[in-house]
Amino acid sequence: MTQTSRLALHDIDAFLRRDFPQLYIHGDIFSVIEIGHGMCRMQMAYHESQLRPGGTISGPAMMALADVALYVALLGAIGEVPLAVTTNFSINFLKKPAPRPLIADCRYMKIGKTLAVGEANLFSEGGDGPVAHVTATYAIPAR
Amino acid sequence: MTQTSRLALHDIDAFLRRDFPQLYIHGDIFSVIEIGHGMCRMQMAYHESQLRPGGTISGPAMMALADVALYVALLGAIGEVPLAVTTNFSINFLKKPAPRPLIADCRYMKIGKTLAVGEANLFSEGGDGPVAHVTATYAIPAR
Amino acid sequence: MTQTSRLALHDIDAFLRRDFPQLYIHGDIFSVIEIGHGMCRMQMAYHESQLRPGGTISGPAMMALADVALYVALLGAIGEVPLAVTTNFSINFLKKPAPRPLIADCRYMKIGKTLAVGEANLFSEGGDGPVAHVTATYAIPAR
Amino acid sequence: MTQTSRLALHDIDAFLRRDFPQLYIHGDIFSVIEIGHGMCRMQMAYHESQLRPGGTISGPAMMALADVALYVALLGAIGEVPLAVTTNFSINFLKKPAPRPLIADCRYMKIGKTLAVGEANLFSEGGDGPVAHVTATYAIPAR
Repeated sequence: MTQTSRLALHDIDAFLRRDFPQLYIHGDIFSVIEIGHGMCRMQMAYHESQLRPGGTISGPAMMALADVALYVALLGAIGEVPLAVTTNFSINFLKKPAPRPLIADCRYMKIGKTLAVGEANLFSEGGDGPVAHVTATYAIPAR
Repeated sequence: MTQTSRLALHDIDAFLRRDFPQLYIHGDIFSVIEIGHGMCRMQMAYHESQLRPGGTISGPAMMALADVALYVALLGAIGEVPLAVTTNFSINFLKKPAPRPLIADCRYMKIGKTLAVGEANLFSEGGDGPVAHVTATYAIPAR
Repeated sequence: MTQTSRLALHDIDAFLRRDFPQLYIHGDIFSVIEIGHGMCRMQMAYHESQLRPGGTISGPAMMALADVALYVALLGAIGEVPLAVTTNFSINFLKKPAPRPLIADCRYMKIGKTLAVGEANLFSEGGDGPVAHVTATYAIPAR
Repeated sequence: MTQTSRLALHDIDAFLRRDFPQLYIHGDIFSVIEIGHGMCRMQMAYHESQLRPGGTISGPAMMALADVALYVALLGAIGEVPLAVTTNFSINFLKKPAPRPLIADCRYMKIGKTLAVGEANLFSEGGDGPVAHVTATYAIPAR
């Protein structure tokens, strides 16, 4: 997985704005920091739309970040595949995230012809240890 | 699980508006249809904030519905427990949801002293067969 | 899922003995009670090879029963497909099983061209409520 | 997680033989190679009781290795806790394992008061890349 990304950062950005407009309805809170072949680091700014009582970030907001980051990491390996779909998504919540930006670090364990399996570790920016861990499977349409 | 809910429908509604305000930032799209002891049926109206290319509903929007519906079903069994937290959430996406309201049907398989395990089937309103299936675990604080 | 099974009970038995010989190394402890199109009920006799301290059944023994039962239920829908492989298997343990035979009740939520998703509830024979719940995904080779 | 193991290798061995006798019914096929605080490397020798058609290792045999290895890694962190129980176990099968010994590399992402969450990567000895990935949650009784 040390190969170059098949998409440049600015192409990813244009792709996300076109195909995932709902990511931007609260402003530019998602940003791709780094992308490689089957890997990606993405940040979600802290925003009141994600709040839970106690100043923490809601589970669904964390899932949304992991889902898009894993999708972007897959694009880094196979190029723009708008019809790749999540088939399984499983998250373990490890500790309460701080009211700070959240980072997702993704890598793929398998990228096959029809299925890809990746994992994401979510961290609070500047924090110590992951706040959640995700594994997800994507079905890749025949090319 | 045939016992009565420990919360009435209108109490749930007040609780959600107070503790989950981010559910309402796009209007009143979530509504609890039925609640029992460890079960609940909840609806999410179709709204453009959930869209994916092709007119379908995004994965994270489906996860948000399942997460809140499972939480509500748990409240139906144990009463208002604002500090119950999701520890594991796993979803299998079965088919593309229609651009229509989405229904979550939840029931708990276990409600123990410290852990509860529930499942949710998600359906398109008027549709045939589930579009997704969720299992989730919640940690219940000592009471 | 009310269609007839594509395999008769005695064909399943012959298939399992040929392709899963390791199920029989402790004797005839696995038996298919009922099979349909995408459903199956299977029993695992109580046997000392499955023991855990305290007289309960080990997690891996429960997983072995669920895995074979889900496989059999899939055969009931698509016929003998020796190359179907499990891609994801997720189990929630709900309570300690009794030292008695264990029953797996399986049904499929989706049987697509390339992926099938099923669930199994495991019960102690004569017991009250499931002891474990499984969801699993199988990849079906092109036919 | 760089602390020392709370159990020595030979204590683990004695513990497993006493509390998990079913691991040894086919001979000494499981061996702990390394143990630390919340981490462990364990090997399962290749044995005909694990076979699947095509000379590969059965899913349940892989699950049994991951389950015991994750248990051992937990003991490395919290000492002998015979009543710790698996609450969730989720495995993604990535590729067919070779007919060779299988290695499980485990580490914990969280070890809390009542819940611990770990992951295991399974490799064929001498192989390239994981054949399966596991996440599991254990409930730790009050101490």
